[in-house]
Amino acid sequence: LGNQLLNPTKIAVDAMGGDQAPSAVVQGAVLATRELGIPIALVGNPEAIERGLAGQSYNRDLLTVHPATQVAEMSDPPIEVIRKKKDASIRVALDLVKRGEVQGVVSAGNSGATMALGVVVLGKLPGVERPALGAILPSPHTPTLVIDVGANVDCSASQLIQFAIMAEPLARYTMKRLNPRIGLLSIGEEESKGNELVHQTFEGLKKTPLNFIGNVEGRDLFSGKVDVIVCDGFVWNICLKLSEGLAEALGQMLKEEIQQAGMVSKLGYQLLKPAFKRFTKRVDYAEEGGVPLLGVNGVVVISHGASGPKAIMNAVRVARQAVENRIIDRVLDSLNRHEPFYRKTKHLRFWDSFRKKTG
Amino acid sequence: LGNQLLNPTKIAVDAMGGDQAPSAVVQGAVLATRELGIPIALVGNPEAIERGLAGQSYNRDLLTVHPATQVAEMSDPPIEVIRKKKDASIRVALDLVKRGEVQGVVSAGNSGATMALGVVVLGKLPGVERPALGAILPSPHTPTLVIDVGANVDCSASQLIQFAIMAEPLARYTMKRLNPRIGLLSIGEEESKGNELVHQTFEGLKKTPLNFIGNVEGRDLFSGKVDVIVCDGFVWNICLKLSEGLAEALGQMLKEEIQQAGMVSKLGYQLLKPAFKRFTKRVDYAEEGGVPLLGVNGVVVISHGASGPKAIMNAVRVARQAVENRIIDRVLDSLNRHEPFYRKTKHLRFWDSFRKKTG
Repeated sequence: LGNQLLNPTKIAVDAMGGDQAPSAVVQGAVLATRELGIPIALVGNPEAIERGLAGQSYNRDLLTVHPATQVAEMSDPPIEVIRKKKDASIRVALDLVKRGEVQGVVSAGNSGATMALGVVVLGKLPGVERPALGAILPSPHTPTLVIDVGANVDCSASQLIQFAIMAEPLARYTMKRLNPRIGLLSIGEEESKGNELVHQTFEGLKKTPLNFIGNVEGRDLFSGKVDVIVCDGFVWNICLKLSEGLAEALGQMLKEEIQQAGMVSKLGYQLLKPAFKRFTKRVDYAEEGGVPLLGVNGVVVISHGASGPKAIMNAVRVARQAVENRIIDRVLDSLNRHEPFYRKTKHLRFWDSFRKKTG
Repeated sequence: LGNQLLNPTKIAVDAMGGDQAPSAVVQGAVLATRELGIPIALVGNPEAIERGLAGQSYNRDLLTVHPATQVAEMSDPPIEVIRKKKDASIRVALDLVKRGEVQGVVSAGNSGATMALGVVVLGKLPGVERPALGAILPSPHTPTLVIDVGANVDCSASQLIQFAIMAEPLARYTMKRLNPRIGLLSIGEEESKGNELVHQTFEGLKKTPLNFIGNVEGRDLFSGKVDVIVCDGFVWNICLKLSEGLAEALGQMLKEEIQQAGMVSKLGYQLLKPAFKRFTKRVDYAEEGGVPLLGVNGVVVISHGASGPKAIMNAVRVARQAVENRIIDRVLDSLNRHEPFYRKTKHLRFWDSFRKKTG
């Protein structure tokens, strides 16, 4: 603890990343210094950062600004960012981690570019085929970690098994689950249910010492009966957007019913509004802050693109937690212990890992 | 029309299929005779059917009972039903179609068994690799047809293309869309987005004369911007169960918020209850009745397992519509016209089509 006080964890924040960047991101960084006392390196266009800081009260000792002349836009293919934007804010932030000037980085920007640059700048942990991204879902019960949500498409069974191996320490040390229950997303609980990929992955996970509880279904994302759900990023992305569309459609249909129902219903809606508001806040998983990217050699927390100041602050908290829990060491340790259960990558062919995404 | 009055479409209803069978199914059949004037053949255990009919008023000329001694249970693997339950009610009902005693069948029972037996008893249309099942989703805009929702896992591109070809006439003649817009479920609209299967299917659909609008995302299931969405049954099943779980979790969290909020919110909820109820009814796609199975040589309407009397009645209406719209001829015609665009199955290897599901 004494050592930590002398060298407190410092986190780089990509000021230019996110739908509301830089202003909301800068505000979130200020919040993190003020509420959590975490030293922050804000990376990006210095003028834009200064405008964001203007009028905010903060401790200047806890906040440094690091210039970067370029921005990885949301629409930029990761490979273009790597090739042509050597001074992108996210890259400069990752360089700070690489050089040991900060211990972790937070970005709400282009997540594909962040994942790819994470590999380029920090490297993959030995044996990792593809880095994977998790997300912690809101639930009326205990929250569940889903991996991969980072659009890793066409995963092999070996890759999915590795995702589980990397997610296990995160569930154990960050989510404080004693013996994390790991499930495989499929279309039925029986071992026979699923596609070829699920069958092969089931076969492989069964042999590991992980606490693999078998197949789980879509509804178990919210049932609290499993701690980690492993799935292909393609399936997850469709599920996620379907959920968003469903929530929106439900909201609209409910609104129409209320409007058609006349004064009494409208009064009822007004009375319920505060409950609706708290509910919306509760199910907004962007508020969680984010989850560290697994498989790269450094703490990289990817936040939702829509992150507001509070979500950014929470992401900084997640990053500090990951540093203090030594999550990278623990992921490495889990990879080493479970090495017999996945195909070890001999040649790290980085380009393979996101070729598909860049078409 | 004169001919139709002399030989009205008669529909067989699998009295033993569904969570609420036989009573709700028998009630639904009675409703169909009374409200729609459709002659019904009720198939199943005669005593159970008679108990269901007791106390109901109906026109005996419109309702016949056909005995069957066995039931395809929800948990029965389709292959077991085919091998060991030759007198299952669904099979007897399909035999009635085969013999021309009825023009279509409705079942809310084991859908895998119904699909497999549909192929065994009625045969596949020439060139069809796998029969596929569609579902019409509720939406604040125009409803969308999704295909496949029948848990066809590990589909090939050729199969997905065939699903689109078979669904097109359904959208055109049943849903009355002039030039149905066909979309492919993926993780982004650009052609480069998706997994290998999506890339191949996109490539193939682009070449057909179908009105293919490209990739669509999960949210487009409710956006009304596409008439038919093609996807792998594995992905759909996960999406479906996730939606159910999500709706349930949202409902529970909202309830908790309302309860914690005190009297005013509770009053608001009471005032809103009628709107909530109509809303629930509107989003309950089981009410739609069902959609005809595509690719088999006969009208087979598969209803949601939870179907109540009204849903069964609606399914009977869907079956009659399919008969009157000559949907089987139109699917056959679409298959013939689009033959250059899918791999024609030379040897109809039926077992292949559901080997995966039976493990």
